[in-house]
Amino acid sequence: MKKVLFASTALLATASMASAEIKFSGYGRFGIGYLEDRSGAVTNITVTTTTSGVINVGTGTAVVDTDDVILISRFRLNIDGIVETDSGVEFSARVRLQADENAGNGEAGEAQLSGARFTVQYGGLRVDAGNVSGAFDNLANYYGNEPGLENFIGQYSGVNYDFLAFSSTGAGSNAVFFQYAVGDFAFGASYDTATGAINGDKIDLDRWDVSATYTFNNITAAIAYGETDAGVDGLDDPSLLVFTLGADFGDFSGTLFVADDNTEIDLTDGTAWGISAAYNVGSALTLTAAYGDGNADGDTEQYGIGAIYDLGGGASLQGGIGNSDCDICEDSSLRADFGARFNF
Amino acid sequence: MKKVLFASTALLATASMASAEIKFSGYGRFGIGYLEDRSGAVTNITVTTTTSGVINVGTGTAVVDTDDVILISRFRLNIDGIVETDSGVEFSARVRLQADENAGNGEAGEAQLSGARFTVQYGGLRVDAGNVSGAFDNLANYYGNEPGLENFIGQYSGVNYDFLAFSSTGAGSNAVFFQYAVGDFAFGASYDTATGAINGDKIDLDRWDVSATYTFNNITAAIAYGETDAGVDGLDDPSLLVFTLGADFGDFSGTLFVADDNTEIDLTDGTAWGISAAYNVGSALTLTAAYGDGNADGDTEQYGIGAIYDLGGGASLQGGIGNSDCDICEDSSLRADFGARFNF
Amino acid sequence: MKKVLFASTALLATASMASAEIKFSGYGRFGIGYLEDRSGAVTNITVTTTTSGVINVGTGTAVVDTDDVILISRFRLNIDGIVETDSGVEFSARVRLQADENAGNGEAGEAQLSGARFTVQYGGLRVDAGNVSGAFDNLANYYGNEPGLENFIGQYSGVNYDFLAFSSTGAGSNAVFFQYAVGDFAFGASYDTATGAINGDKIDLDRWDVSATYTFNNITAAIAYGETDAGVDGLDDPSLLVFTLGADFGDFSGTLFVADDNTEIDLTDGTAWGISAAYNVGSALTLTAAYGDGNADGDTEQYGIGAIYDLGGGASLQGGIGNSDCDICEDSSLRADFGARFNF
Repeated sequence: MKKVLFASTALLATASMASAEIKFSGYGRFGIGYLEDRSGAVTNITVTTTTSGVINVGTGTAVVDTDDVILISRFRLNIDGIVETDSGVEFSARVRLQADENAGNGEAGEAQLSGARFTVQYGGLRVDAGNVSGAFDNLANYYGNEPGLENFIGQYSGVNYDFLAFSSTGAGSNAVFFQYAVGDFAFGASYDTATGAINGDKIDLDRWDVSATYTFNNITAAIAYGETDAGVDGLDDPSLLVFTLGADFGDFSGTLFVADDNTEIDLTDGTAWGISAAYNVGSALTLTAAYGDGNADGDTEQYGIGAIYDLGGGASLQGGIGNSDCDICEDSSLRADFGARFNF
Repeated sequence: MKKVLFASTALLATASMASAEIKFSGYGRFGIGYLEDRSGAVTNITVTTTTSGVINVGTGTAVVDTDDVILISRFRLNIDGIVETDSGVEFSARVRLQADENAGNGEAGEAQLSGARFTVQYGGLRVDAGNVSGAFDNLANYYGNEPGLENFIGQYSGVNYDFLAFSSTGAGSNAVFFQYAVGDFAFGASYDTATGAINGDKIDLDRWDVSATYTFNNITAAIAYGETDAGVDGLDDPSLLVFTLGADFGDFSGTLFVADDNTEIDLTDGTAWGISAAYNVGSALTLTAAYGDGNADGDTEQYGIGAIYDLGGGASLQGGIGNSDCDICEDSSLRADFGARFNF
Repeated sequence: MKKVLFASTALLATASMASAEIKFSGYGRFGIGYLEDRSGAVTNITVTTTTSGVINVGTGTAVVDTDDVILISRFRLNIDGIVETDSGVEFSARVRLQADENAGNGEAGEAQLSGARFTVQYGGLRVDAGNVSGAFDNLANYYGNEPGLENFIGQYSGVNYDFLAFSSTGAGSNAVFFQYAVGDFAFGASYDTATGAINGDKIDLDRWDVSATYTFNNITAAIAYGETDAGVDGLDDPSLLVFTLGADFGDFSGTLFVADDNTEIDLTDGTAWGISAAYNVGSALTLTAAYGDGNADGDTEQYGIGAIYDLGGGASLQGGIGNSDCDICEDSSLRADFGARFNF
């Protein structure tokens, strides 16, 4: 016998008293994806003949050119346990289950489970612990509009700093993120303790970030800064400074992105910048575009356009086409996709 | 606090408008299983004494005879996210969670997650993508009645062709399956792109299959054909042609199975055939039987009988006994099981 | 669209007829944990310079001292499929999903899936099969009060016998557990078949246990005995005998624990004992304490105190402090934690 979860709006009386519940949410997306010169690891059969004529057969893997056009897909399920105390404090915990196709060899992938994120919320204050996102990943307009069913083009493409972000298919970091919203202002901060070793000696690899966001009328401005401990004396700590601007003018919305990407590696060090836009053409169709680049030789330059056609019920058709390149890259890489996405 | 999912029939008003929901369904089954000469990999402790008298202890695994009678079990949970658009098109996505006992050493096994399957349905048309079943796995009466709690006897036992099928505990293939039903007819087709390598050179291992099904009165006839690219010049492509017939006469139902199993390997090449039957003895008890064989030396011959006793509420007691053998097998293998199955 | 599971008490009419349902339940807990001299495996970068001046960089893992204070957490979700037959027999199956932090290096951990447990219940009789707990793990007052958010202090600390217990993050054993309750008495018994090997030769490692429990007024007395087959001639079978007493006097409750821990290894062989207590201070605050020890040199001695502050809705603040030591341990180990726990 099949079971059904009800939409929360219809039947749930969320009284202002202590309660506990488990919520499920997520989305599916699938379609076709084109990637120029796609390659990946596939099963390889090795056949060798010895001088005495014996034929030996072994199996392993080899990286070969695979089909440029493959079936792309993602299944995402968020599992949230939520408890509200007598005094109105909300505790919650999330684990994510996600399955993605293997973008290299074009095969399917088993669903994976994430590490857990724990949250306590009261009024404008929110504290996350565990597998959390930090101030950058939570920053308003950091990602902007990302064209394509797979959101494969982004204004942030020139950034190489490795900031704290929720891992959907792995353990993630074990960190803390604070967020406080008051009026038009919001503040965020995270701290991630991490220990590593060099030649068996312990080193600290802690990282932290802070952010401030201000919304006035139809415009949101945000700034964030973060650092990672290099762990070794004499090495400078990598850092990132980001400024974003987002504006909403009826059917048109746009974002602006500037970053000082201090990776302390010449190939990726320097300024990164980008813009993105979305435009509603009629009631169901939205067009998107994004461009991102940086001044370092290894920075990825990306630009592309996309379209979203709303089918109602949380479903839409989405597609995009875009290009990735860098100053020292031998070739640019064209990518395009098209398919359906549905939120449940 | 424990949460409960409601049966869909009772409370859900599925209005004819856009909607989104997450459904859970599945079954549990457990009991005892007998397998003649069962063996499996177990933890092995190696104790060695050196010439100087030093005793070394190591651990690894060894394959040994294990208990013929073990606890058998399966837990299966289907997780389905479903969205219906304004125009009545249904998008859905499934991941399966399944735990099975280890049939070799008799121990339990952790639950595994499958790759995701994506579906779009409208009227009589259905398209599956991702970890899907193909035209054979979806073919009417391919499996027929399979005696035993574990359905371990089947009319298809003589078939060795490896067709496209949903993987419950792995990634599965990344393929597409189409199905179209109109009146008494139904058509199916699948295509699975796959890349492999020989000595590091890419080869194509694509496979496809098609099927047609016709239902007239109490009889269903179905035919399916499929091929797999051998990938190498000079090698013939393996293929399979299957014809099935199913008939329903009140308390009695039966199926007939014939296949041309073109594996291109002498040991398994040739014709395969089988029959199965089910008979309702009174209101709660059903008896089942199946027989399958093939004319190749390596083809598996199977025959057995089973019984199902309905307990109501989706629960039943099930059991079966059967024999597997082949022309070149040293010994036949007797197998029997008994236990409970309950659908939720 | 997000989905909500309803609390079972509010809306579900469990009529006395056949039914099927899927239940979700669990808890989250997170906070900070202190462990004296914590250490764990972290990523280690090895840098070596050859005589010719070439610098080689490799990565592996190394065990180093990590932060004594880390973020501790657990996310637990029980997935239960439940079917009731026409005659009132209940069949159910459970798989658990659980994510814990890595207590060694302080990082997060991916959620894991357990092996499945199957249950049939009718009146006072219950039979579990698969990944089950045995008579000790199910014994009244075996664990008693365990101070700390992580319940890290227990009266049973002197016990070293490895009894049958449900595995939350692994396959567990494939065993059977019986329980029968009649009036003030309850009886339990389990049998776990297991096969191993020594130098490739099969050995039996079966284990079993039995228990009896008697409740009179506010006191519960329980006794349990279990043995594990050593598998080798000439080796004695390890065994465990446990006696527990639990009493409830209004706001105060306490437990007493005595065990004959026959591990057949000198370092851990002998008597183990312990006590625990809980005291309700006012309506929301509960204080807990526990002490455990054994007479063998390797037995772990533990003592500690804790506090639980109820926030309503299934949420509470919990913390504890305690010490672990043993006769031959170089140092004792101080441990403390504090955080929130919420049941959903």
